[in-house]
Parts: sequence; structure tokens; C-alpha cells
Amino acid sequence: MPIHTQLVDRVAVGRYQDEVTHPSAIKAFVAEFISTLIFVFAGQGSGMAFGKLTDGGATTPAGLVAAALAHGFGLFVAVSVGANISGGHVNPAVTFGAFIGGNITLLRGIFYIIAQLLGSVVACLLLFFSTGGLATTGFSLSAGVSIWNAFVFEILMTFGLVYTVYATAIDPKKGDVGIIAPLAIGLVVAANILAGGAFTGASMNPAVAFGPAVVSWDWGCHWIYWAGPLIGGGIAGAIYELIFINRTHEPLPGSEF
Amino acid sequence: MPIHTQLVDRVAVGRYQDEVTHPSAIKAFVAEFISTLIFVFAGQGSGMAFGKLTDGGATTPAGLVAAALAHGFGLFVAVSVGANISGGHVNPAVTFGAFIGGNITLLRGIFYIIAQLLGSVVACLLLFFSTGGLATTGFSLSAGVSIWNAFVFEILMTFGLVYTVYATAIDPKKGDVGIIAPLAIGLVVAANILAGGAFTGASMNPAVAFGPAVVSWDWGCHWIYWAGPLIGGGIAGAIYELIFINRTHEPLPGSEF
Amino acid sequence: MPIHTQLVDRVAVGRYQDEVTHPSAIKAFVAEFISTLIFVFAGQGSGMAFGKLTDGGATTPAGLVAAALAHGFGLFVAVSVGANISGGHVNPAVTFGAFIGGNITLLRGIFYIIAQLLGSVVACLLLFFSTGGLATTGFSLSAGVSIWNAFVFEILMTFGLVYTVYATAIDPKKGDVGIIAPLAIGLVVAANILAGGAFTGASMNPAVAFGPAVVSWDWGCHWIYWAGPLIGGGIAGAIYELIFINRTHEPLPGSEF
Amino acid sequence: MPIHTQLVDRVAVGRYQDEVTHPSAIKAFVAEFISTLIFVFAGQGSGMAFGKLTDGGATTPAGLVAAALAHGFGLFVAVSVGANISGGHVNPAVTFGAFIGGNITLLRGIFYIIAQLLGSVVACLLLFFSTGGLATTGFSLSAGVSIWNAFVFEILMTFGLVYTVYATAIDPKKGDVGIIAPLAIGLVVAANILAGGAFTGASMNPAVAFGPAVVSWDWGCHWIYWAGPLIGGGIAGAIYELIFINRTHEPLPGSEF
Repeated sequence: MPIHTQLVDRVAVGRYQDEVTHPSAIKAFVAEFISTLIFVFAGQGSGMAFGKLTDGGATTPAGLVAAALAHGFGLFVAVSVGANISGGHVNPAVTFGAFIGGNITLLRGIFYIIAQLLGSVVACLLLFFSTGGLATTGFSLSAGVSIWNAFVFEILMTFGLVYTVYATAIDPKKGDVGIIAPLAIGLVVAANILAGGAFTGASMNPAVAFGPAVVSWDWGCHWIYWAGPLIGGGIAGAIYELIFINRTHEPLPGSEF
Repeated sequence: MPIHTQLVDRVAVGRYQDEVTHPSAIKAFVAEFISTLIFVFAGQGSGMAFGKLTDGGATTPAGLVAAALAHGFGLFVAVSVGANISGGHVNPAVTFGAFIGGNITLLRGIFYIIAQLLGSVVACLLLFFSTGGLATTGFSLSAGVSIWNAFVFEILMTFGLVYTVYATAIDPKKGDVGIIAPLAIGLVVAANILAGGAFTGASMNPAVAFGPAVVSWDWGCHWIYWAGPLIGGGIAGAIYELIFINRTHEPLPGSEF
Repeated sequence: MPIHTQLVDRVAVGRYQDEVTHPSAIKAFVAEFISTLIFVFAGQGSGMAFGKLTDGGATTPAGLVAAALAHGFGLFVAVSVGANISGGHVNPAVTFGAFIGGNITLLRGIFYIIAQLLGSVVACLLLFFSTGGLATTGFSLSAGVSIWNAFVFEILMTFGLVYTVYATAIDPKKGDVGIIAPLAIGLVVAANILAGGAFTGASMNPAVAFGPAVVSWDWGCHWIYWAGPLIGGGIAGAIYELIFINRTHEPLPGSEF
Repeated sequence: MPIHTQLVDRVAVGRYQDEVTHPSAIKAFVAEFISTLIFVFAGQGSGMAFGKLTDGGATTPAGLVAAALAHGFGLFVAVSVGANISGGHVNPAVTFGAFIGGNITLLRGIFYIIAQLLGSVVACLLLFFSTGGLATTGFSLSAGVSIWNAFVFEILMTFGLVYTVYATAIDPKKGDVGIIAPLAIGLVVAANILAGGAFTGASMNPAVAFGPAVVSWDWGCHWIYWAGPLIGGGIAGAIYELIFINRTHEPLPGSEF
């Protein structure tokens, strides 16, 4: 599977070379940036389309289906197009989960996250201008949902997402068919939006929440969309690596970076 | 295909070792638990989301689409992430159907079912807490649907599901592409929900019905969601094994366990 | 690709053996019967579910989406589970198109069609009983659609379906990945339903129209759902075989059967 | 991957033979024509179905989901069935993007585009007649969307589409699994329609806009649906080729054609 191979290659490369200025690192940075841009453009754009079609009406089941498909299909595409270059993380929680399990170095992970945040902000700015100045729809809690409810919800959903990344893209026991990983990663997000979208907006991805927060400059509850996904993703990485992979590998210098 | 290989490996392992305490058995138990948790969290959560968005309104076609996609996508993911560890059953009816056809031992099957029931209960408890105490939506019969109608409906739909499991994941003649099995298994459930969801709720899975029943402590008609799927799954396993597989294998000691 | 290999194997077998009583012929008959039953159960059931949820209301865009997904997902599953046994035709128009292109013998084709019709009737009878006697929803023309409009519509849509079968499952140049054929076959039907469902019901399959006609004993315009698909499927088979395959094969005795 | 192999084969063929009258060129022309016909028939037909079901009502979120699925599924099928014959472009912007990156000759590209435009016109004419003369729904800007908004929107969405074509079908580093390319290409269009469909109609494809414009003879703002996609597709081809492929190939005579 290309995604994991890429990760391993990157770690190996990191041991001997300046991993930030190496050409493949720059390509990976650009790939994360563009993949996240494509993903956030479709996902955030679908929320703005719902607002336009309903004059800012409340979410309906049909609207939730539209949001789930836009994010699920968009993420499948973003992972597919990035898989052979950067691994297709497009999500700081995925990068953090990969780091916790020793599958990416700290330095490279930070560059990935910067690329993801940039991609999301640029996608939201482009949407802002090309819709004639419509407000981006930031993430927020639905009525009757407490901060702690939302926090737990985001942890659980992102746990499922990063567990899926590990099982289909990182685990050496996975099959060698490159379609399962991007499809499962996209569709677990779609499925979770059909559940959590009515409660927390179902971000599962700090970059997805960051772009609209910057463009609309609305930071209410923003920490939830960082803390929840990072904790959920970190737990998934630790659990999967410990229980299911349990490599007998010599320590990777890159992973203590 | 990894799923069947796993099943065969498990049977083989079972002949010589204490199959319950063996490390791979524990991993399979954890994998079934987490896969079922991810699946039920999305599926049950989508029902609760529909209730929240419509103030507990009656099911609409758009709501049925949302439920079908949440369960179909969630099950695809659950099978994909479990395929290489436990086979990705996430359903006592699938485990029972595999047992009837001689593809899993009784003891290991019981452990699988315990893991599935636990995963479903934990998913429903987590939903209960993270939604601030919303009631889980237990399975029940729609108006005008008799107990026997529902019973036959669940038998038929689960027959289709377990027949699909056999044809795409167990049959040695199947192709070697690991994507068909999880996708067909997920989408047969989605298709059946679009039909049966308006009549019986379309569980096809005792674990899916068990979690909400425990958390809301509502056991009305609960037997239907056990008897129907187990009978339908058992018939599918017997028919497929007899007609289409008809192995000339030496008797497996494990299968009489 | 298993589907085409099966077809060729069948033709070869047909030259030397009584192809009807041969065990593999019986297996193929049972496989077509069960695959069609699963497909029609979900597709027809979704129409009955829409009727139940809306008290027999007129079709809405959300209802069209539900019908498209139920048929598309159900057909993907039906083709996937039948692919390695019978080729997964589940449609007399596909079988006829395969016959026109010389990819199945006449006798075997007739047996396939009988199995498909039986599967559809049994699916509709089971739906009739398990819904407590709800009427199956037969195919009919929408208001403002003439018989010739519908006839042309069915020809065009079935042309697309059988062309897809040839390109992804029969053409020797196709890739060897078994997932494309069933997915493309299922999704071309879903896409066509989103267009034609509002005009003709979008059957593209005589068996799909036959089951409800038998159970509700309503034969109005029924000929359209035979003539249209058979003509469209036959044209697709002839065109694809002539233009794109153009085999330099020795004449197959079986194909003149 | 067949798509790229086809492209390379075509370029190679072009060096030595009259690439227009060569049998494989004629086959590719027919394949592009039929693939585009199937795609536009489903996509445009779904818009006309929405109009029929709602008596020409305004777009709703459920209608946007229907349009996204019809175009996404239809494009997946169109690319799948054309992949092994013509590469499955079905879009002048894709052909132009492939030309910019040196992956198709100018002459062959022009023939592709003619086939695509013809396919779209014929699909719209067939829809016009088989619906009893319903108007095709041409592309136009929603209220409150300026020409420049729409122009930028189409550039951005088509950039994402052609970037996806490059990453999954042309890049030599892509995996060898033929399912990812058509599925990602279809679903990026579906995701973008869920965003842009409410603003510009989300064409991303001059042929998709050309057919309805001819049949309804309505050319208002038509240039946007040519200029936007061609610019977006060209940028994607240039960027991907420069940054991610960077072949060390000897200059291809065909690419300066």
C-alpha cells in the first residue's frame, strides 16, 4: 500500500537528510496543501450551498446527507490524490495519530499540519470571494449540546477515523489494494457526520474548523475542534500500534526526533 | 481474500491451541469490539440525529436515506478495519452463519458475539452521554406491521446479507480483491434499509438491536431481532455451503467443537 | 475478470455436455435466482417503503434518490455475489445482449431468463406477505409521458447499461480488477433512475417489471418494459462486439446454438 | 493503469501513423462519443427529472444531492467504460489539461473534443424527444452570483477535477489499481456539485454545458463554462506535470504536434 510505504520511506529518508528541504518533502507539503484545499472547498462549500438554498435555514436530514456526501466524497478524493506523494493525511489529527504511533517524525508532522491549515484557509478565502462574500459556516455546538458533550463526541468520532487510517493504510497486515484505505477513510467521516453533524458539526479535523474560523474570525469553542480530534487520534494511534501492530522493529531514530 | 484466510487460519489454530487465550484470539476480540462500536456509533447516532433535527418526527424518505448511508458506510468501514484481524463479522448473525457452514468454531463464535454485544452497548452508552442524555432509538415495528411480518422480513434481509458474506468473503472461488467483500456487505445492508427500514427498522443484526435495548431498557419484540437474523443467517450459510462450495475437505475437528 | 471467464467457460462446456443438467448449470440457475431475488427485494421494497412513509404520495426528489440508491446498491451486490457462479446477469436484457454478441448460448440464456423471472416473482410475493399485503408498485408511465417516449427512454437507458456490462465485464481488454464491473453496472442503473425514474420508472430490466406485474396482475404497458430493454441491450451487444472487440476467434459452435 | 497507458500508446502511435484515420483513433472517437452520451444523459436527465417532479421549482438540498449523485455516478461509469479504449476523458477540460501536460497530441485532442461535444448534443436531443419536448436545463448563474464569481468558481472546481485526473490516472507513481481513477474522478465532481451547484450549476465541463445550450439555443454566459474549465484544467495539468511528475523523458515529437 502506497500510503504506508510512503510513511516508512519518509522516516528512512529523515534519518540521513534534511527532511524539510529535501525535494520530496516540498512535494509532500504542496500535496497536503492542495489535497486539503480540494477537501475543504467541497465540504465547506456544501455548507454554504445549503445556506444559500434555504436562506440560512436550520439543518434538515437532507442537508445532513448533502454535508456527509460532500465531506465523504471530498475526503476520499483528497486521500486518493495525495496517497502516493504525501500519504494523504489532510488532517492534523491523522498526522498526530501517525506521530504517536511512530509513523512520522515530529518535524515532518509539523510541516504537514502547516500545509493543511494553509490549505483550509485558502479554500475558505476562495469560497468567500467566489460566492460574492457569503459567510463561511464555522463549527459550533447545536442547541442543547454542552461543551463536554461535544468534546467527547469529537474524541469518539476522530478515534474511529484514525483507527480506520491505521487499519487500512498503516498496518503491514492490510491487503495491498490501494482503494480500501481512501474509501474507508472518506466514508467513516461521512457516516460520522450523519450521526454527529446534528450535535457538534462533526469536524474530526482541526484544519476543517480552522479555515472558517480564520475567515469569519469566530473562535468560539474553537479549542474543542483541536483538543477533541487530537486526543481521539492520539488514542487511536497508540492503541492500534500497541495491540495490533506490535512491531519488533529496531528503534527508528526518526521517531524520537 | 484476507477474511476467509483469517477464518481458515483461526480454525487451524483452534485445533492445537487454547483458542481463547491465544494472543490472536484476544486481538480478534478487541477488533470485533471496536469495529462494532464504530458501526453502531454511526448507525444509531444517525437515528438520534434524525430525532434531534426533526424533534422526534416520523421517518421521511430523506431520513431513510440518511439511515441507510450511515449504516451502509459504517458497516463497510467496520468490515474493512476488522478484515485482517478478526474477519470483520460485527454481527452475531454473520458469526452464526459462518458457524453453520463450518467456518468458525463454536467457542470462538461465542467470544465474537460477546465482543459484538459489548461494542454495541458501549457505543450506545457513549451516545447517551455525549448527546446529553438523548434516548437511543430502539428497534420496533411500524404501524400496520405484525410480529410475523417483521419476523419474515428480518429473516429475508439477513439471508441476503449472510449470502453476500459467503459469496464475497468465504467462497474460495471469489476473486482476490479485498474491496468487494466489505463494500458489498455494507451496501446490501444499505439497500435493505431503504426497503425494510420503513417496516421493521431493518436491523439484520442482533447486536445492533441489543445496545439500544440495554440502554433504553426496552425489550418489546426484542426476540424478533435475534430470531429473524439468526435464522436467516443460518439458512444462508447452510445453502451457500451446500450448493456452491461443497468442499471436498477432510472434516475439520474445529468445526465440530 | 471472473464474469467473462465464466461466460467463455460456459460456452465451452456447452459444446460437449448437456448444458442444462450439468451441475454448474444448475448452480448458475440457482445463483441467478437468488441474486435477482436480493436485487428486486431491495429495489421493489424501497418503492413500497416510500409509499408507506408518504401514504402513497407522489414521487419527490428525495424519493428518487432512495429508489436510485436501493436499485444501484442492490444491483452492485447482486452482480458481485453472482459474478463467480453465473456471471451475475440478473437481467434478461443483459442476457440477451450477451447472446447477441455471442457470449452465451441460446439455451443457457433461456434458463437464465427463467431464473431471473422466478427470482423477481418470489421477491415480490415475499414482499407482499411480509408487508402485510401492501400492493407492489408496478411500473407505469408518468403523466405527460407517451408510450413512445417511454419506449425510447427504456431503449436508451438499457443501451447504457449493457454497454457498461460489455466494457467492464466482457471486453478482453478490460483490466483484471473485479470491482469495476459490478460497481459500474450498479451505478449506471442508479444514475439512470435519477433521470428516467420520473418519466418511465426506469426499469431497464424486464424481470424487474415482471415480478410486480404478476403479483399485482397489472399488465398495462408491460410490453414496453420488455421491448425497450431487449432492443437497447441487443443494440449495445452488437455495437460493442463489432466495433470494440472484433475478435479474430474461430466461430464458436455454442454461439449458433 | 490503462488510462495512462492508453495516452502514452496514443502519443507513440501518433508519431508514425495518420492518427486520425487509424482504426484505434476511430474507436477512441466512438468511445468518447458514447461515454459522453451516457454521462450527459444521466446528468442532464436528472435535472429535467427534478423539474418534472417539482413543476420547475427552485433547487432544494435533496435536488442537489440527486444532481450530484447522477453526475458523480454517471461520470464514474463513463470513465470506467472508456478507460481502456480512449482513456475516458468525456470532458474538453480534461483533454486540454492532458494536452498542456504533454499527454495527448493537439490533433487527437481536437478529435476527442468534437466527439465529446457531439455526444452531449445527441444526449440532449434524445432527452428532448423522449421526454415529449421538455426543455433541457441550461447552465446559468444563481441569483446573487456575479459573472466573475462564477468564473472563479468554475476555475477552482475544474482545477480539482483535472488535478485528480493527473494524480490517479496519469502520474506514473499512481498504484496499478484501475478502480481509483474513475471513482475519484466521478466523486470529485459529485462533491463539487454539492458545493458549486447552488451557485454556478457546477459544470466543470464545456461539453456538459454545450449540449443543453444547443438544444435550448440559450447562450447566455456560455463562455464562462468554456473559459473557466479550460483555465482550471490547464493550470492543473501544468502544475501537476511540473511539480509532481517532472519526467526525465526525451521530448515527445507528438506533444509538439
